[in-house]
Parts: sequence; C-alpha cells; structure tokens
Amino acid sequence: MLRIGIIGYGYWGPNLVRNFADIDGATVTLISDTNEAALKRAQAAYPMISVTPNDYDVILSPTIDAVAIATPVSTHYPLAKRALENGKHVFVEKPFTTSAQQAEELIELADRKSLKIMVDHTFLFTGAVKKIKQLIDDGVLGRLFYFDSIRINLGLLQKDSNVIWDLAPHDLSIMDYLIGCNPIAIAATGTAHINGFEDVAYVTIYYPDNLIAHLSINWLSPVKIRMTMIGGQKKMLVWNDLEADEKLKIYDRGVEVETKEESYHARINYRSGDVWVPRLEQVEALKTEAQYFADCIYNNLTAINDGVAGLRIVKILEAIIQSLKTGGCVICLEKIPAALRTVNLAPA
Amino acid sequence: MLRIGIIGYGYWGPNLVRNFADIDGATVTLISDTNEAALKRAQAAYPMISVTPNDYDVILSPTIDAVAIATPVSTHYPLAKRALENGKHVFVEKPFTTSAQQAEELIELADRKSLKIMVDHTFLFTGAVKKIKQLIDDGVLGRLFYFDSIRINLGLLQKDSNVIWDLAPHDLSIMDYLIGCNPIAIAATGTAHINGFEDVAYVTIYYPDNLIAHLSINWLSPVKIRMTMIGGQKKMLVWNDLEADEKLKIYDRGVEVETKEESYHARINYRSGDVWVPRLEQVEALKTEAQYFADCIYNNLTAINDGVAGLRIVKILEAIIQSLKTGGCVICLEKIPAALRTVNLAPA
Amino acid sequence: MLRIGIIGYGYWGPNLVRNFADIDGATVTLISDTNEAALKRAQAAYPMISVTPNDYDVILSPTIDAVAIATPVSTHYPLAKRALENGKHVFVEKPFTTSAQQAEELIELADRKSLKIMVDHTFLFTGAVKKIKQLIDDGVLGRLFYFDSIRINLGLLQKDSNVIWDLAPHDLSIMDYLIGCNPIAIAATGTAHINGFEDVAYVTIYYPDNLIAHLSINWLSPVKIRMTMIGGQKKMLVWNDLEADEKLKIYDRGVEVETKEESYHARINYRSGDVWVPRLEQVEALKTEAQYFADCIYNNLTAINDGVAGLRIVKILEAIIQSLKTGGCVICLEKIPAALRTVNLAPA
Amino acid sequence: MLRIGIIGYGYWGPNLVRNFADIDGATVTLISDTNEAALKRAQAAYPMISVTPNDYDVILSPTIDAVAIATPVSTHYPLAKRALENGKHVFVEKPFTTSAQQAEELIELADRKSLKIMVDHTFLFTGAVKKIKQLIDDGVLGRLFYFDSIRINLGLLQKDSNVIWDLAPHDLSIMDYLIGCNPIAIAATGTAHINGFEDVAYVTIYYPDNLIAHLSINWLSPVKIRMTMIGGQKKMLVWNDLEADEKLKIYDRGVEVETKEESYHARINYRSGDVWVPRLEQVEALKTEAQYFADCIYNNLTAINDGVAGLRIVKILEAIIQSLKTGGCVICLEKIPAALRTVNLAPA
Repeated sequence: MLRIGIIGYGYWGPNLVRNFADIDGATVTLISDTNEAALKRAQAAYPMISVTPNDYDVILSPTIDAVAIATPVSTHYPLAKRALENGKHVFVEKPFTTSAQQAEELIELADRKSLKIMVDHTFLFTGAVKKIKQLIDDGVLGRLFYFDSIRINLGLLQKDSNVIWDLAPHDLSIMDYLIGCNPIAIAATGTAHINGFEDVAYVTIYYPDNLIAHLSINWLSPVKIRMTMIGGQKKMLVWNDLEADEKLKIYDRGVEVETKEESYHARINYRSGDVWVPRLEQVEALKTEAQYFADCIYNNLTAINDGVAGLRIVKILEAIIQSLKTGGCVICLEKIPAALRTVNLAPA
Repeated sequence: MLRIGIIGYGYWGPNLVRNFADIDGATVTLISDTNEAALKRAQAAYPMISVTPNDYDVILSPTIDAVAIATPVSTHYPLAKRALENGKHVFVEKPFTTSAQQAEELIELADRKSLKIMVDHTFLFTGAVKKIKQLIDDGVLGRLFYFDSIRINLGLLQKDSNVIWDLAPHDLSIMDYLIGCNPIAIAATGTAHINGFEDVAYVTIYYPDNLIAHLSINWLSPVKIRMTMIGGQKKMLVWNDLEADEKLKIYDRGVEVETKEESYHARINYRSGDVWVPRLEQVEALKTEAQYFADCIYNNLTAINDGVAGLRIVKILEAIIQSLKTGGCVICLEKIPAALRTVNLAPA
Repeated sequence: MLRIGIIGYGYWGPNLVRNFADIDGATVTLISDTNEAALKRAQAAYPMISVTPNDYDVILSPTIDAVAIATPVSTHYPLAKRALENGKHVFVEKPFTTSAQQAEELIELADRKSLKIMVDHTFLFTGAVKKIKQLIDDGVLGRLFYFDSIRINLGLLQKDSNVIWDLAPHDLSIMDYLIGCNPIAIAATGTAHINGFEDVAYVTIYYPDNLIAHLSINWLSPVKIRMTMIGGQKKMLVWNDLEADEKLKIYDRGVEVETKEESYHARINYRSGDVWVPRLEQVEALKTEAQYFADCIYNNLTAINDGVAGLRIVKILEAIIQSLKTGGCVICLEKIPAALRTVNLAPA
Repeated sequence: MLRIGIIGYGYWGPNLVRNFADIDGATVTLISDTNEAALKRAQAAYPMISVTPNDYDVILSPTIDAVAIATPVSTHYPLAKRALENGKHVFVEKPFTTSAQQAEELIELADRKSLKIMVDHTFLFTGAVKKIKQLIDDGVLGRLFYFDSIRINLGLLQKDSNVIWDLAPHDLSIMDYLIGCNPIAIAATGTAHINGFEDVAYVTIYYPDNLIAHLSINWLSPVKIRMTMIGGQKKMLVWNDLEADEKLKIYDRGVEVETKEESYHARINYRSGDVWVPRLEQVEALKTEAQYFADCIYNNLTAINDGVAGLRIVKILEAIIQSLKTGGCVICLEKIPAALRTVNLAPA
C-alpha cells in the first residue's frame, strides 16, 4: 500500500486528496497546509486523515512513501528536493519549477535515488487529449500544419506571476505530448495592465516541418474560451473543452495543390466533407493520473509526464519570458537536447 | 449627376455596380473587365449599362467623373494613377496599393489635381463598427487594454499573395478607425503550407499606453470565425460578425486593483455585471460607403477612408511582411508620421 | 421548350422567375401582378420578359404551356382552375387550396385533361430533407418514435389568416414525405393575441405504430428557431436549418429495454455514441424543384409533390383548424383514404 | 436549533443533507435509507451523522423536529402522514403526492397540528426564476401572451411512472409561481415507446386572458434542452438554463396593432430593439430553500411552496394524465378553487 502525503490544501489540493484517496493500492495518510482555515476544511472533509500545519512533517514522516505538492510554484523546488532527499516519490503541480536549472537538479536527484517524479499535466489524461493523440498517431489528421489554442477568461490574476506561468503550461504540455517533438523557436508578445504582470499574451512556437503553434492567453477576457484547433493535411479538428457533450469535432476538410504534368498551372482544391464527433472517455482525468502515478512507482515505469517532461515545459516557459521581455524577438530553442525526449508508455 | 465607371466585374465588382447604381446623385455608365465571361454576366445583369473589355476605355472616357477599381491589388497603382491623371476621382479596393511609395505618389497626385481617393474599407460603414466607435468615443469602454481579432476560414488561397494581404486589411482598417492613433511597433509570425505563401499568420501590434492588438488570420481553418474582442478598463465587448442577430455584446465586466492606504496589500477586484446587446443599424455598409464617396466629392470632404487612411494600412502591412520574414522580429513604426492622421468627419 | 408564365411577383414570385428562367428546356415568357410597383420591379429585373397587370393574360395566353401561381392562397383555386381548363400545367404555392374539396376538384380536372399539378413543397428538395429521407428509408434511424418540429419567429403576421395556414404546411409536407404514411388523428391548441387570428399554436399528429409528431409554431417569438428532431429506435437526429454549415446531426443514441429470461426485471439500457454531421448537397432547392416540374411534364411522371400530396396536406390543415376551434379535441383522420398515397418517384 | 432527519439517500438525498447541514439554526441528526449501499455512502460522507436502515426511526425519533423526505413519490403520503402525526414539520420532494386527495389530507393534518409542509419546488429559488418573477411583477414584460417550455433529454426513464410525473412538476411549479393564477383548462398528448409509460408528451395549459402555456417533455431526446420562452406584450424573454453564464435574455421585441381613426385598416408594427442579459444571483437554490424552510418554521410563515402549492401542482398533474388517456381531450380545471391560492411571502 502506497502511503501518500498531500502538501497544500488550497485550490487544487482538495482534488488531489479526493482522487489519491480513491485509487487502488494507495492511501492518503497526512495533509499539511500552513493556512489554518484550509487545515480546518481538510479535517472536516476527511476526519480519518491526519493534518499538520507544517509541510515538513509530511516530508520527513517515515511512514510516507510519496508526496503530492500543491503549493505555489516558488516552493516546488525546495519542497520536492527535501522530499526526494528523504526518499519520497514526488507528484508536483504544474509548472514543475521556476527554472530549468531547478528541474534538472531534481531530475538528477530522483534518478540517483531511484525515485519517481510526476508533474501534474492533468489534461494529458482527459478523454479529449487521448482521442486526439490517437488520431494523430494513427495518421488520421495527416501531416500537421498548425496547432492553435485559445485559453482566456476573466481572472484569476496572480499577485506574483504573469498569465504565462499560470495558463500556458496546460497548452504547452498538451502540445508537447501531441506533437511529440521539440520546438525550434519561440516568439511571444504581451502586456500588463493591472498589476505589473502580463495579463494578455500571445505565443508562437515553431516546430520542425513547418508546423506552427500559437497560444492566446488572457486574464482580462469578458468570456471564457477553451478552444484548440489542429489543422492537418488530411483532416482538421476543433476541441472546445467547454462543451458539455460534443467537445471534439473532426472535419473532413482540407486544401490541396494539384499539379498536372501537362500544365504549368497548379490548381488549388478544397475538400469539405462530413464532420464527426467521437464519443470521448468519461473518466475524471485526475483520477486516471493519480492511479498512473501509483502504477509507475509499482512497475518502475517512465511516465509520459515525468520530471523530464516537466523540464521541457519549463525550458519553453523560460524562452517565452525571454522573448516577452524583448517585445517579441525570436528565441531559438536548440538548447533542448533531443535526449530530453524519451519514449514513454502512456497509461493503458 | 456623378458619372461612375467600374473597372473589374469579378468577385466584388458586382457589389460595387449594384450599390453605386442605387445611390442619390450618381449613375454607373460603363463597366470594364478583361474577362469575357465576366463581361457577359455584367451585360445580362445590367442591360442599360455599357461594357468594355478595355479598362482604359473607362479611365479615358470624357463622360466619366469617377472610377471604382475592383481589380487585383497589383493593378491598383497603374489604374488609379492614369485615372487621376485623367481627372477622375478614385474609389479603390483594399489594400490601397502594394507599397507605401505607390500610395504616397497617388495621394500627392490627387492633392495636386484636387481629386478624391477613397479606399474601400467597407467595415467602417457597418452598424457594428459604428456602434463600437461610439462606445469608445463616449468613454463607455474606458481606457483600452487590448483589441483581439480572429478572422479565419477555409480558403480562398490566392495564387500570388499571402493571407496577410488578403485578410489583414479588414482588421487593420477597423483598428485604425476605432483606436484612432498610430501603432508603435509590430511583430508577426506565420507559415506557408500549401503554395509557398503564408496561409496562417499571427500579428501583434503595440499601441501607445499599453494597448496591445492581435490578429489571428488563417486560410486553413475548418471553421469560419469572425470575432473581435475589445477589453477596456470599464467594459469589454465581443463582436461576432457571423451572428445573424446578436453581433455585438457589451459586458459590464472588469478587473481593478484596490489599494488601501492602511494596508500594504493591493486587492484585485473582479466586476461581473449585466450583458447588453444593442440593436445595430441594418443598412448595407457598401451602400452607405458609396453614398459617402459621392458626398465627399460633392462637398469636398476628407473621408475617414481616404488615401491617407489607405496609406497607413499599407505601411502597417509592409511592416508585418518585414517582421514575418525574420520569423517574428519586432518592427518599429515611428516611420508613420503623425501628420498621416488627420481629423476626418465620419458620415452622418 | 416549355413556356412558363408566372402569376404573382410579390414575396416569392421573384424566386420562381429566377429559378424557372434558369432551368433546361424551359423559358419564362410572361409575368403578371395586379400591383403596379411589383410589375415595375419585374420589368426592371427582367427587361426581356413581358409583364401584364392582368393574371388572366397569363392563363389565356395561347403561347404558354404552364403557369406558376404565387398569389394569396384564396386565389389558388380560381386561378388554377382556369389555367387547367385552358390546358396549362400548374405549379402552385403551398398551401394548395383553402379546402380539400377545391383540391379534389382541381386534381380531377387535371387528370381529365392529362395535365400536371405540382404544389411548391420546396423543403422536399433541400439537401437536408433528401439526406433524412435516405437515412429513414435505409433503416439507419430504425423504427420512428417521434417527429418534433419547432418553427417560430417574430412576424410576419398575416391579416386574413392564422399561423397554421402560414407555417404548418412546411412541416406537414416534410412529415408527409419522410414518414410516408397517413396520420391517424390530430389535436391542436393555440391562441390569438394580436389581430384575432391564432399567432401561437401547437399540433400533435398521431401516426400508426405509436409514432407521434408535434409541431410548435409561433409568430410572436423573440428568436427565430427552425429545428426538427426525429427520434428512432436505432438513431436520432437534429436538423437545425438555421445553421450555416452543420445543419444535420445524427446521434448514435438510444434507449432499449433488455429483458432477461432468468429475471422478472427489465433493464433499461442507454446508448450514447458518436455524432455524425453529414455533408449535405448544396443546390438551391427551388431550382431542383423547378427542373423537376419540367421533367415531370416532359416524361409524364407523378411528382412526389403532386396535387394529391397537396390535398393530403390540406386535409390535415382542415383537421387542425377543426381541433383548434374546440380548444384541442382529437380529430380522427380516417377520412384520408389510402388511395391518396401513391408511389411516386423522387427526382434523381 | 432545528433538528432535521433525512429520509432517503439516493439521487437527491445527498443534496438535502449537504444543504440542510449547512444552514443557520439547523442541524442534520439522522439519515435513513432502506438500501444498504446508500447508507454506507452516507456514513462515509458524514461520519458525524447517525444512520439507520429504518425510515420510521427518523419519523418516530423524539429528538427530531422536522423530516425531509427524498423517497419515491408513492411513499410520500404514508411517510409524511406518520411524520405529521408525530409532530414533525415536513419537507418533501416534488411531486407532493400521487393524488390530490392525499395532498388535501396532509394539508388538513398539518393545519390541525400547526406544522409546516414545504414541497421541494427548487427552481423557485434559482436566480433565474427570481429575476423573471421580478420582471413580471414590475410589469416589464407587460401582459403575458405565452409561456413555452422545453425540457428534454435522454433518460432517465423510470420503471413505474411516466415522463409527466418526473419532469412536468418543475415547469408546473415555475408557471404556478410566475403566472400567479390558476389555469382554466388542459390538453395533453403523448406516447409510450419503451416500457409502457409515456416517454414523450406535450401539454397545453390555458390560463385566463388568452395566456397559453405549453410544455414539451421527452425522455428520448438525443440532446438536452432546458429552455423557457415567455412572450409579453411589452417584452419577451428566453431562459436557457444550460447556459453557464448568460441564462436569461430579455428582448425588447414585440408586435402591436396600430388602428388609426382615419382608416379602416389596422397596421401591424414590429418592434425589434436591444437585448439585455441581466446578471443573476449566484446562490445554490437548494441552500436558499433549506434556509427558507427553517425560517418559515421559526417565524410561522406560509411558504410560497407550501402544501397548498404542492396540491395545486398535483391537481394539474391529475388533469394532464386524464387528458393524456383520451388522446388529448380538453380537461376543464374549474375544480381548483380560488382559495387554493393564498398570498405568500417569498424569501427575502
């Protein structure tokens, strides 16, 4: 039985407790939060689980095998480091760390101690992303032309960070998983209007083979939009995550250039066929991911969202911030070594 | 009676004929198109109007006062130049010309000959843009934070130009009119997938006072979207031009920072109130614009979409192309002199 | 060459002229309208076609083979009767006549003179109805459970008739074609609020085999809705005619009762699978129908929308009005003899 | 402190426990359910609350002041009767009882013992219904023309009852509250396709002053719709309860007849103005209602959803079933005495 301690019972922590408490082969034994009110809520909701105001009670406990960290990103590195040093597997919220250097240090430490790191890229475990991954891998979409994502809403502005660090990790981890290769370069623009941190930003990411990705994120939008379009040579799709029922639409539409030998002129053909709305798996993504964390530990698997995956996202975030500071200059990403992409097995 | 000749009866020309033929104080007397089939269609639809396969028959006709040019952009400059030289007022499709230098030359020529140039920025005459202009000018939106436009669909790829020259002039002319000041800098990214011309592009435009504008244009989208969001300090709006009935929604939503004297901490407040969908004027924009062209000539007015307005858009287009070539580098626009913005009177 | 005269150039007449003028093997030679302004519009739009203020000039013309009647319904019978007596085939707007007796008389007359009657049930020729017909006939939907249609908008109230006679013929003719058998009984409710004629009405139509149809029609709705749902044992569909692109959605959803031998309890199973949006034919329905009219005359075919089909709809309309007068009492329809349904061939 | 016992921890019971446990001046002390699994779930979720498999433990407990009954409708009467006999206030799920006679008996019993009955017409406590009530009472909509509601989805078919008893009480209680007077007559149609109980039904309800209400309910719809339209002489509204954000839209649209003295002809005018989307109260309806139950007991108030309100709905349900059995015959409702409508005070 995997004994898990949860650090942080704020916005996301309750979801971690609920899901880790519900998986096979694991049990949640201790919850910490430095905020008294949060701790009381934890105790009321889970009378059988112990609570403590001291995060290090969790990290140092000899009866805990793994910790899940749901605290502000600036604390991820120190907490994860001490947890690994004390022999605990680590499940940590996104983004992994505030710098690539921190991420690399944690990965190295976990490797040395034969411990697992999993970064909470929850979306990888949704029915929508799983279905899109399958469509791409099966060649249904054909060669990818573009990946365009809009993630906007009103609030919640953070007091010590910009919209990039808050919202972009979702799309970056989804792109990383679906596209399956490292980007070449990045250009990002944005502005701050409220409290000095960018609240509107636009990111272009260049991938090999003319694949262009773009991300529009905004904390000041009057409407909430969660929409991703992926255009391929054969088919195109729109994923609207706010739709209750028909989240994913696959369009048999496309453009082709027909070049006839007997002619010097190329003809552009448009194809506009049926639309297909596949039924998606209805599981809660976080529950699948929590179970996957336990399975990776039990069976010594390399997770699709391991520390290395987390590091890739942090490296891209660093490049985005760097470009943002210049007003949009292109930042080359050859710094992400190919070795940073390993062949991992997705959960069944 | 203003006698108008129409050059080009392809995709847009028929709309020009229909609308110019319908306004007060003007008449369409001659249509030219080098394509025989187009000419036949013109003759069938308007048996009372003469037609000719030679564009210069229109330009040189002594009984014509003004020409409307609806031909490919590369021909705008030579046709408009000859028309002006022959003493004709010019109404020309967007984009005005293929270079700022051409535009400047035409403006200078028209000034010298006391002739009018109007560039067909049709959207300025829609009920939606008029209402938004009024909301901004009346201070309803407050200080502007961002202007975000999405203009995507499947096709129609052009054989000699990219998606920027085709779709961006719409949004650039709308921004120019609504924001009412010149941009500071531009950064654009994009890729070509089909025939060597960019078919997906993203443009960021920096305006003074931290106003950021962004434009997403795409010829390879499986769905058609025409959506503009404008975020202001007081209110925000979404303009969905494909809605039949409720195109414009104004949201009483916003974010403010409250700083209390007695505290070091700033509090972020969110406001989320009613939504208002104003009824819009239902006239056909092009008809209003055609009438405005005649009125500007009769009353010697400077149009909101005169040659100088067209030049401003071409200068921005040139900067976008320049940025695109570098993969997204920021291009400063101090080159647009303030003199290029004159106070014009919008049509009543 | 079939020579066609058009009677009535009001709201729908121009569409008839445009489409009949465009088909193979036919020509429009004369247009009549008792309204002077309408006649002027006709002349301006079609300078090559003669016009007359006297409907009987069309009916009596020796050089006309067929007439298309687009006048108020109360004039259908006298105009069609005289046209048939003068040896002309008749294309007539829906609803066919104001009473079943009139319809029967016209059918008998046409039969005697070997002339064709076609009632303008335009929707039968749309891509959506054609596709639905195919899905039903191919057994894709399985046994039909219900047919539910909503056809509501603001206006246009008529001064001498209720919402039933105006809007219901559309749905009744679609049901008649798709369901392919006669209804058993009818119950209708409704109220008048503005000018003494019902402006809101609800109609239930019972078909054999427990198939129930329902129609909600309303001239006082703030929003326009054109939605038809068809529930079958195997699949269900929603047809939203106001969607530009994705009008028809077919849902792999259903409910079944599983009865196990070993148990007294029946289990209800829900099936919820993919959604499929078939691409529909993009032709203009009225053009297909106009061509079909000519083809039926040339090849002596019995149209799917012949006089007998028109009579079936009028009989149902009469029953609806009868039920409406009683506040909703059920009216049996055994009066529609089976002979009124003949096997007709749809257009290719 | 009001001590509450909850009977039934199936589909809705957990919501009752959660909300009654959370209000001021009340505490949940005992939960019963005859199903062992349900009881275990209750115990796990609320370790501090006692549980029992015997409903009568709740009813007979001397330390309980009020019971909330969330069991199948056939058990409402016997359970509520014994509870009232034992001096407990009663909160009971909709529909109140299976017959008007049962309802009358319970009301009489509660009156005699000075106990309160509240029927769970939850929708009356939603922000949307509160806002609509205010709009109607303030005269914003003007005289009401129609009330049209669609409540359809796939499942959940019940094994011992039809779609009317399951879904109609929602709309009937909303109409009862909003319209504020008793209906005159009813006509209902419907059919059973799956297990012998009607799964598709349509109900027309005639109110005084030409107000017509209609209800479309369906367990076999491939899509879920919860839409209510209310047409008034001055304004019209659409309430789409599935919209996350903009549930209620008020349209400044209407139709009027203008009668000029100097003319015999009436002119029909259409008005089409702005749309307004008011921000709605965001409280959980059931929580407001639970608090209101306690307040009505403490302050001896007559609730807007008291037993008499419940009885009115049951009387309408009985008439609907009666009409349904005849295939749609009109059933007069003069049987609902005016005395059944008392002036109640809505919660603040």
